[in-house]
Amino acid sequence: MARGRGRPRASGGPASGLSTEAEIRAAAARLFCTEGYGSTSTYKIAQAARISQATMYHYFAGKHEILLALLLDTVRPSVAYAASLAASTEPAATRLWRLCAYDVRLLLSGEENLGSLYLLPELGDERFAPFHAERQRLIETYRELVAATGDLAGPDLAAVTSLVFGLVESVILRRRADTDLGSGMDARIADAALRVTGLDEAAVNGARAAAQRL
Amino acid sequence: MARGRGRPRASGGPASGLSTEAEIRAAAARLFCTEGYGSTSTYKIAQAARISQATMYHYFAGKHEILLALLLDTVRPSVAYAASLAASTEPAATRLWRLCAYDVRLLLSGEENLGSLYLLPELGDERFAPFHAERQRLIETYRELVAATGDLAGPDLAAVTSLVFGLVESVILRRRADTDLGSGMDARIADAALRVTGLDEAAVNGARAAAQRL
Repeated sequence: MARGRGRPRASGGPASGLSTEAEIRAAAARLFCTEGYGSTSTYKIAQAARISQATMYHYFAGKHEILLALLLDTVRPSVAYAASLAASTEPAATRLWRLCAYDVRLLLSGEENLGSLYLLPELGDERFAPFHAERQRLIETYRELVAATGDLAGPDLAAVTSLVFGLVESVILRRRADTDLGSGMDARIADAALRVTGLDEAAVNGARAAAQRL
Repeated sequence: MARGRGRPRASGGPASGLSTEAEIRAAAARLFCTEGYGSTSTYKIAQAARISQATMYHYFAGKHEILLALLLDTVRPSVAYAASLAASTEPAATRLWRLCAYDVRLLLSGEENLGSLYLLPELGDERFAPFHAERQRLIETYRELVAATGDLAGPDLAAVTSLVFGLVESVILRRRADTDLGSGMDARIADAALRVTGLDEAAVNGARAAAQRL
Protein backbone atom coordinates (compact mmCIF):
# COMPACT_ATOMS: atom_id res chain seq x y z
CA MET A 1 0.00 0.00 0.00
CA ALA A 2 2.64 2.46 1.08
CA ARG A 3 4.53 3.99 -1.79
CA GLY A 4 7.61 5.06 0.04
CA ARG A 5 8.97 4.85 3.52
CA GLY A 6 11.49 6.88 5.41
CA ARG A 7 10.96 10.05 3.44
CA PRO A 8 11.62 13.06 5.64
CA ARG A 9 8.50 14.52 7.18
CA ALA A 10 7.17 17.97 6.56
CA SER A 11 8.38 20.17 9.37
CA GLY A 12 6.01 20.18 12.31
CA GLY A 13 5.09 16.55 11.59
CA PRO A 14 3.73 14.06 14.06
CA ALA A 15 5.34 13.87 17.44
CA SER A 16 3.50 10.78 18.63
CA GLY A 17 6.40 8.39 18.16
CA LEU A 18 4.58 6.64 15.32
CA SER A 19 6.02 6.58 11.81
CA THR A 20 4.44 9.04 9.42
CA GLU A 21 2.63 6.23 7.64
CA ALA A 22 1.26 4.83 10.91
CA GLU A 23 0.24 8.33 11.93
CA ILE A 24 -1.74 8.77 8.71
CA ARG A 25 -3.46 5.40 9.23
CA ALA A 26 -4.33 6.22 12.85
CA ALA A 27 -5.71 9.65 11.96
CA ALA A 28 -7.75 8.24 9.09
CA ALA A 29 -9.08 5.36 11.21
CA ARG A 30 -10.24 7.84 13.85
CA LEU A 31 -11.92 10.10 11.30
CA PHE A 32 -13.52 7.27 9.28
CA CYS A 33 -14.95 5.70 12.45
CA THR A 34 -16.10 8.87 14.20
CA GLU A 35 -17.09 11.24 11.39
CA GLY A 36 -17.67 8.78 8.58
CA TYR A 37 -15.72 7.86 5.46
CA GLY A 38 -17.83 10.02 3.17
CA SER A 39 -17.35 13.10 5.32
CA THR A 40 -13.58 12.73 5.65
CA SER A 41 -11.37 14.54 3.13
CA THR A 42 -7.67 13.93 2.54
CA TYR A 43 -7.20 17.48 3.79
CA LYS A 44 -8.77 16.58 7.13
CA ILE A 45 -6.63 13.43 7.40
CA ALA A 46 -3.41 15.35 6.72
CA GLN A 47 -4.41 17.99 9.24
CA ALA A 48 -5.21 15.38 11.91
CA ALA A 49 -1.88 13.64 11.23
CA ARG A 50 -0.15 17.03 11.39
CA ILE A 51 1.49 16.63 8.00
CA SER A 52 1.06 18.37 4.66
CA GLN A 53 -1.25 16.92 2.03
CA ALA A 54 1.78 16.48 -0.24
CA THR A 55 3.42 14.25 2.36
CA MET A 56 0.21 12.26 2.72
CA TYR A 57 0.09 11.68 -1.03
CA HIS A 58 3.66 10.43 -0.88
CA TYR A 59 2.37 7.49 1.19
CA PHE A 60 -1.13 6.92 -0.15
CA ALA A 61 -2.75 7.73 -3.51
CA GLY A 62 -5.94 8.84 -1.78
CA LYS A 63 -8.27 8.09 1.08
CA HIS A 64 -9.48 4.89 -0.62
CA GLU A 65 -5.95 3.52 -0.38
CA ILE A 66 -5.80 4.28 3.33
CA LEU A 67 -9.17 2.62 3.82
CA LEU A 68 -7.98 -0.44 1.91
CA ALA A 69 -4.86 -0.66 4.10
CA LEU A 70 -6.99 -0.41 7.25
CA LEU A 71 -9.41 -3.08 6.01
CA LEU A 72 -6.59 -5.47 5.09
CA ASP A 73 -5.24 -5.08 8.62
CA THR A 74 -8.51 -6.55 9.93
CA VAL A 75 -8.17 -9.81 7.95
CA ARG A 76 -4.54 -10.45 6.95
CA PRO A 77 -3.34 -11.40 10.44
CA SER A 78 -6.16 -13.95 10.74
CA VAL A 79 -5.37 -15.39 7.30
CA ALA A 80 -1.73 -15.78 8.33
CA TYR A 81 -2.75 -17.34 11.64
CA ALA A 82 -5.05 -19.75 9.81
CA ALA A 83 -2.16 -20.75 7.55
CA SER A 84 -0.01 -21.52 10.58
CA LEU A 85 -2.82 -23.68 11.98
CA ALA A 86 -3.04 -25.64 8.73
CA ALA A 87 0.43 -26.99 9.43
CA SER A 88 -0.55 -28.21 12.89
CA THR A 89 -1.57 -31.77 13.72
CA GLU A 90 -4.18 -30.76 16.29
CA PRO A 91 -7.77 -31.94 15.87
CA ALA A 92 -9.90 -29.68 13.66
CA ALA A 93 -12.12 -28.62 16.59
CA THR A 94 -9.11 -27.28 18.50
CA ARG A 95 -7.86 -25.41 15.44
CA LEU A 96 -11.29 -23.94 14.76
CA TRP A 97 -11.55 -22.85 18.39
CA ARG A 98 -8.17 -21.14 18.16
CA LEU A 99 -8.96 -19.39 14.87
CA CYS A 100 -12.27 -18.03 16.20
CA ALA A 101 -10.65 -16.76 19.39
CA TYR A 102 -7.75 -15.17 17.48
CA ASP A 103 -10.08 -13.49 15.00
CA VAL A 104 -12.31 -12.11 17.78
CA ARG A 105 -9.29 -10.65 19.57
CA LEU A 106 -8.14 -9.06 16.30
CA LEU A 107 -11.57 -7.50 15.67
CA LEU A 108 -11.68 -6.18 19.23
CA SER A 109 -8.14 -4.77 19.09
CA GLY A 110 -7.07 -1.24 18.26
CA GLU A 111 -8.47 2.11 19.19
CA GLU A 112 -11.19 2.12 16.55
CA ASN A 113 -13.80 -0.43 15.51
CA LEU A 114 -12.43 -0.90 12.00
CA GLY A 115 -14.86 -3.73 11.27
CA SER A 116 -17.62 -1.14 11.26
CA LEU A 117 -16.19 -0.01 7.92
CA TYR A 118 -17.19 -3.38 6.38
CA LEU A 119 -20.69 -2.04 5.80
CA LEU A 120 -19.70 1.10 3.90
CA PRO A 121 -21.51 1.25 0.55
CA GLU A 122 -18.22 2.45 -0.96
CA LEU A 123 -16.79 -1.07 -0.53
CA GLY A 124 -18.63 -2.17 -3.65
CA ASP A 125 -15.99 -0.27 -5.66
CA GLU A 126 -13.50 -2.55 -7.41
CA ARG A 127 -10.61 -0.77 -5.75
CA PHE A 128 -11.52 -2.74 -2.64
CA ALA A 129 -11.35 -6.11 -4.43
CA PRO A 130 -8.09 -7.04 -2.62
CA PHE A 131 -9.93 -6.78 0.72
CA HIS A 132 -12.87 -8.89 -0.46
CA ALA A 133 -10.46 -11.50 -1.85
CA GLU A 134 -8.56 -11.70 1.43
CA ARG A 135 -11.78 -11.98 3.43
CA GLN A 136 -12.91 -14.74 1.09
CA ARG A 137 -9.65 -16.61 1.75
CA LEU A 138 -10.37 -16.37 5.45
CA ILE A 139 -13.91 -17.70 4.96
CA GLU A 140 -12.51 -20.63 2.96
CA THR A 141 -10.30 -21.55 5.89
CA TYR A 142 -13.26 -21.41 8.22
CA ARG A 143 -15.16 -23.63 5.80
CA GLU A 144 -12.40 -26.27 5.80
CA LEU A 145 -12.19 -26.29 9.59
CA VAL A 146 -15.98 -26.36 10.02
CA ALA A 147 -16.20 -29.27 7.54
CA ALA A 148 -13.63 -31.26 9.48
CA THR A 149 -15.05 -30.34 12.91
CA GLY A 150 -18.71 -31.06 12.27
CA ASP A 151 -18.32 -33.69 9.54
CA LEU A 152 -20.42 -31.49 7.25
CA ALA A 153 -20.69 -31.05 3.50
CA GLY A 154 -22.87 -29.38 0.87
CA PRO A 155 -25.50 -26.80 1.80
CA ASP A 156 -25.20 -27.64 5.51
CA LEU A 157 -21.50 -26.84 5.40
CA ALA A 158 -22.09 -23.49 3.67
CA ALA A 159 -24.81 -22.54 6.16
CA VAL A 160 -22.87 -23.55 9.28
CA THR A 161 -19.74 -21.79 8.01
CA SER A 162 -21.82 -18.67 7.51
CA LEU A 163 -23.15 -18.97 11.09
CA VAL A 164 -19.69 -19.47 12.59
CA PHE A 165 -18.18 -16.59 10.62
CA GLY A 166 -21.20 -14.45 11.50
CA LEU A 167 -20.77 -15.23 15.18
CA VAL A 168 -17.12 -14.14 15.02
CA GLU A 169 -17.87 -10.94 13.10
CA SER A 170 -20.84 -10.13 15.35
CA VAL A 171 -18.31 -8.63 17.78
CA ILE A 172 -18.18 -5.71 15.35
CA LEU A 173 -21.83 -4.96 16.11
CA ARG A 174 -21.43 -5.84 19.80
CA ARG A 175 -18.36 -3.66 20.22
CA ARG A 176 -20.49 -0.69 19.29
CA ALA A 177 -23.50 -1.50 21.44
CA ASP A 178 -22.06 -3.05 24.58
CA THR A 179 -19.80 -1.46 27.09
CA ASP A 180 -18.91 -4.73 28.83
CA LEU A 181 -17.23 -6.57 25.98
CA GLY A 182 -14.31 -7.40 28.16
CA SER A 183 -12.06 -10.35 28.67
CA GLY A 184 -13.32 -13.77 27.82
CA MET A 185 -15.33 -12.74 24.76
CA ASP A 186 -12.87 -14.61 22.53
CA ALA A 187 -13.33 -17.87 24.44
CA ARG A 188 -17.09 -17.47 24.66
CA ILE A 189 -17.43 -16.96 20.93
CA ALA A 190 -15.07 -19.84 20.15
CA ASP A 191 -17.15 -22.10 22.44
CA ALA A 192 -20.37 -20.94 20.80
CA ALA A 193 -18.91 -21.52 17.32
CA LEU A 194 -18.14 -25.15 18.16
CA ARG A 195 -21.64 -25.65 19.56
CA VAL A 196 -23.05 -24.27 16.32
CA THR A 197 -21.12 -26.91 14.34
CA GLY A 198 -23.03 -29.49 16.37
CA LEU A 199 -20.40 -30.53 18.93
CA ASP A 200 -21.76 -31.51 22.33
CA GLU A 201 -20.71 -29.98 25.64
CA ALA A 202 -17.96 -32.52 26.35
CA ALA A 203 -16.38 -32.03 22.91
CA VAL A 204 -16.51 -28.25 23.26
CA ASN A 205 -14.89 -28.43 26.68
CA GLY A 206 -12.19 -30.72 25.32
CA ALA A 207 -11.35 -28.44 22.39
CA ARG A 208 -11.25 -25.36 24.63
CA ALA A 209 -8.96 -27.07 27.13
CA ALA A 210 -6.62 -28.24 24.36
CA ALA A 211 -6.54 -24.81 22.71
CA GLN A 212 -5.86 -23.01 25.97
CA ARG A 213 -3.04 -25.36 26.89
CA LEU A 214 -1.02 -24.15 23.93
CA MET B 1 -42.07 10.70 12.84
CA ALA B 2 -44.28 11.95 10.06
CA ARG B 3 -45.63 15.39 10.67
CA GLY B 4 -48.61 15.26 8.40
CA ARG B 5 -50.29 12.81 6.17
CA GLY B 6 -52.55 13.19 3.23
CA ARG B 7 -51.25 16.57 2.18
CA PRO B 8 -51.50 16.99 -1.57
CA ARG B 9 -48.30 16.21 -3.43
CA ALA B 10 -46.27 18.62 -5.47
CA SER B 11 -47.24 18.16 -9.08
CA GLY B 12 -45.20 15.51 -10.83
CA GLY B 13 -44.92 13.59 -7.58
CA PRO B 14 -44.26 9.90 -7.21
CA ALA B 15 -46.17 7.56 -9.46
CA SER B 16 -45.07 4.36 -7.78
CA GLY B 17 -48.31 3.77 -5.94
CA LEU B 18 -46.62 4.41 -2.57
CA SER B 19 -47.76 7.26 -0.35
CA THR B 20 -45.53 10.31 -0.47
CA GLU B 21 -44.13 9.48 2.94
CA ALA B 22 -43.34 5.90 1.94
CA GLU B 23 -41.78 7.18 -1.26
CA ILE B 24 -39.49 9.49 0.72
CA ARG B 25 -38.47 6.62 3.01
CA ALA B 26 -37.79 4.29 0.09
CA ALA B 27 -35.72 6.88 -1.76
CA ALA B 28 -33.74 7.74 1.37
CA ALA B 29 -33.16 4.06 2.22
CA ARG B 30 -31.80 3.45 -1.27
CA LEU B 31 -29.50 6.48 -1.13
CA PHE B 32 -28.29 5.87 2.45
CA CYS B 33 -27.46 2.25 1.66
CA THR B 34 -25.88 2.75 -1.76
CA GLU B 35 -24.22 6.18 -1.59
CA GLY B 36 -23.86 6.58 2.15
CA TYR B 37 -25.70 8.67 4.73
CA GLY B 38 -23.03 11.38 4.83
CA SER B 39 -23.09 11.84 1.07
CA THR B 40 -26.89 12.07 0.81
CA SER B 41 -28.50 15.52 0.93
CA THR B 42 -32.18 16.27 1.46
CA TYR B 43 -32.07 17.72 -2.05
CA LYS B 44 -30.99 14.33 -3.47
CA ILE B 45 -33.69 12.53 -1.49
CA ALA B 46 -36.43 14.87 -2.73
CA GLN B 47 -35.17 14.49 -6.27
CA ALA B 48 -35.12 10.68 -6.05
CA ALA B 49 -38.64 10.70 -4.56
CA ARG B 50 -39.72 13.07 -7.35
CA ILE B 51 -41.10 15.66 -4.96
CA SER B 52 -40.07 19.17 -4.00
CA GLN B 53 -37.85 19.76 -0.98
CA ALA B 54 -40.70 21.75 0.58
CA THR B 55 -42.94 18.69 0.38
CA MET B 56 -40.20 16.55 1.91
CA TYR B 57 -39.87 18.95 4.83
CA HIS B 58 -43.61 18.72 5.35
CA TYR B 59 -43.10 15.05 6.29
CA PHE B 60 -39.65 15.04 7.88
CA ALA B 61 -37.63 17.74 9.64
CA GLY B 62 -34.45 16.58 7.96
CA LYS B 63 -32.56 13.52 6.82
CA HIS B 64 -31.83 12.52 10.42
CA GLU B 65 -35.57 12.13 10.98
CA ILE B 66 -35.90 9.88 7.94
CA LEU B 67 -32.95 7.81 9.16
CA LEU B 68 -34.54 7.51 12.59
CA ALA B 69 -37.82 6.33 11.05
CA LEU B 70 -35.96 3.72 8.96
CA LEU B 71 -34.00 2.49 11.98
CA LEU B 72 -37.12 2.20 14.13
CA ASP B 73 -38.68 0.05 11.39
CA THR B 74 -35.87 -2.47 11.91
CA VAL B 75 -36.65 -3.02 15.62
CA ARG B 76 -40.24 -2.00 16.44
CA PRO B 77 -41.90 -4.97 14.73
CA SER B 78 -39.65 -7.37 16.69
CA VAL B 79 -40.40 -5.57 19.96
CA ALA B 80 -44.13 -5.89 19.25
CA TYR B 81 -43.72 -9.55 18.32
CA ALA B 82 -41.75 -10.18 21.52
CA ALA B 83 -44.57 -8.57 23.52
CA SER B 84 -47.09 -10.91 21.91
CA LEU B 85 -44.86 -13.87 22.82
CA ALA B 86 -44.75 -12.76 26.45
CA ALA B 87 -48.48 -13.46 26.70
CA SER B 88 -48.04 -17.01 25.41
CA THR B 89 -47.81 -20.11 27.60
CA GLU B 90 -45.28 -21.88 25.36
CA PRO B 91 -41.96 -23.00 26.82
CA ALA B 92 -39.25 -20.32 26.80
CA ALA B 93 -37.13 -22.25 24.26
CA THR B 94 -39.99 -22.24 21.75
CA ARG B 95 -40.58 -18.53 22.26
CA LEU B 96 -36.88 -17.73 21.91
CA TRP B 97 -36.74 -19.79 18.72
CA ARG B 98 -39.70 -17.89 17.30
CA LEU B 99 -38.31 -14.47 18.24
CA CYS B 100 -34.93 -15.21 16.64
CA ALA B 101 -36.56 -16.47 13.44
CA TYR B 102 -38.91 -13.47 13.29
CA ASP B 103 -36.10 -11.00 13.87
CA VAL B 104 -33.90 -12.60 11.20
CA ARG B 105 -36.73 -12.43 8.66
CA LEU B 106 -37.27 -8.76 9.54
CA LEU B 107 -33.56 -7.94 9.09
CA LEU B 108 -33.52 -9.77 5.76
CA SER B 109 -36.70 -8.08 4.50
CA GLY B 110 -37.00 -5.00 2.35
CA GLU B 111 -35.08 -3.84 -0.66
CA GLU B 112 -32.18 -2.37 1.30
CA ASN B 113 -30.02 -3.75 4.11
CA LEU B 114 -31.15 -1.15 6.67
CA GLY B 115 -29.24 -2.87 9.48
CA SER B 116 -26.05 -1.74 7.77
CA LEU B 117 -26.94 1.74 9.03
CA TYR B 118 -26.47 0.55 12.65
CA LEU B 119 -22.75 1.17 12.33
CA LEU B 120 -22.96 4.78 11.16
CA PRO B 121 -20.88 7.04 13.40
CA GLU B 122 -23.73 9.55 13.24
CA LEU B 123 -25.83 7.24 15.45
CA GLY B 124 -23.97 8.54 18.49
CA ASP B 125 -26.02 11.74 18.18
CA GLU B 126 -28.73 12.05 20.82
CA ARG B 127 -31.37 12.51 18.15
CA PHE B 128 -31.12 8.75 17.63
CA ALA B 129 -31.77 7.97 21.31
CA PRO B 130 -35.29 6.63 20.53
CA PHE B 131 -33.73 3.98 18.28
CA HIS B 132 -31.16 2.95 20.89
CA ALA B 133 -33.89 2.78 23.55
CA GLU B 134 -36.07 0.56 21.37
CA ARG B 135 -33.15 -1.72 20.53
CA GLN B 136 -32.35 -1.95 24.23
CA ARG B 137 -35.95 -3.03 24.90
CA LEU B 138 -35.53 -5.78 22.35
CA ILE B 139 -32.27 -6.93 23.96
CA GLU B 140 -34.05 -7.04 27.36
CA THR B 141 -36.65 -9.39 25.91
CA TYR B 142 -33.92 -11.62 24.52
CA ARG B 143 -32.29 -11.61 27.94
CA GLU B 144 -35.48 -12.78 29.67
CA LEU B 145 -36.01 -15.56 27.16
CA VAL B 146 -32.36 -16.65 27.25
CA ALA B 147 -32.47 -16.69 31.07
CA ALA B 148 -35.55 -18.93 31.04
CA THR B 149 -34.27 -21.16 28.23
CA GLY B 150 -30.78 -21.84 29.50
CA ASP B 151 -31.42 -21.43 33.22
CA LEU B 152 -28.77 -18.72 33.28
CA ALA B 153 -28.09 -15.70 35.48
CA GLY B 154 -25.41 -13.07 36.15
CA PRO B 155 -22.41 -12.61 33.86
CA ASP B 156 -23.18 -15.86 31.99
CA LEU B 157 -26.63 -14.57 31.15
CA ALA B 158 -25.28 -11.26 29.85
CA ALA B 159 -22.66 -13.01 27.73
CA VAL B 160 -25.00 -15.62 26.26
CA THR B 161 -27.63 -12.95 25.51
CA SER B 162 -24.95 -10.98 23.69
CA LEU B 163 -24.02 -14.08 21.66
CA VAL B 164 -27.63 -14.85 20.75
CA PHE B 165 -28.38 -11.27 19.76
CA GLY B 166 -25.09 -11.13 17.85
CA LEU B 167 -26.00 -14.28 15.96
CA VAL B 168 -29.33 -12.76 14.94
CA GLU B 169 -27.82 -9.43 13.89
CA SER B 170 -24.97 -11.15 12.06
CA VAL B 171 -27.38 -11.53 9.12
CA ILE B 172 -26.73 -7.83 8.54
CA LEU B 173 -23.09 -8.61 7.78
CA ARG B 174 -23.96 -11.84 5.95
CA ARG B 175 -26.59 -10.17 3.81
CA ARG B 176 -23.88 -7.98 2.40
CA ALA B 177 -21.27 -10.66 1.84
CA ASP B 178 -23.23 -13.74 0.79
CA THR B 179 -25.33 -14.20 -2.25
CA ASP B 180 -26.97 -17.40 -1.03
CA LEU B 181 -28.75 -16.10 2.04
CA GLY B 182 -31.93 -17.73 0.98
CA SER B 183 -34.74 -19.53 2.65
CA GLY B 184 -34.11 -21.33 5.88
CA MET B 185 -31.67 -18.78 7.32
CA ASP B 186 -34.24 -17.85 9.96
CA ALA B 187 -34.57 -21.45 11.15
CA ARG B 188 -30.82 -22.07 11.03
CA ILE B 189 -30.07 -19.02 13.16
CA ALA B 190 -32.86 -19.84 15.61
CA ASP B 191 -31.47 -23.39 15.96
CA ALA B 192 -27.95 -22.03 16.47
CA ALA B 193 -29.19 -19.54 19.07
CA LEU B 194 -30.71 -22.34 21.14
CA ARG B 195 -27.50 -24.38 20.88
CA VAL B 196 -25.58 -21.34 22.14
CA THR B 197 -27.81 -21.20 25.25
CA GLY B 198 -26.59 -24.72 26.01
CA LEU B 199 -29.59 -26.79 24.85
CA ASP B 200 -28.76 -30.22 23.43
CA GLU B 201 -29.79 -31.47 20.00
CA ALA B 202 -33.01 -33.11 21.20
CA ALA B 203 -34.17 -29.96 22.98
CA VAL B 204 -33.34 -27.80 19.94
CA ASN B 205 -35.27 -30.16 17.67
CA GLY B 206 -38.22 -30.11 20.06
CA ALA B 207 -38.35 -26.31 20.21
CA ARG B 208 -38.07 -25.98 16.43
CA ALA B 209 -40.84 -28.51 15.86
CA ALA B 210 -43.12 -26.75 18.36
CA ALA B 211 -42.39 -23.31 16.89
CA GLN B 212 -42.99 -24.44 13.32
CA ARG B 213 -46.27 -26.13 14.22
CA LEU B 214 -47.76 -22.74 15.09
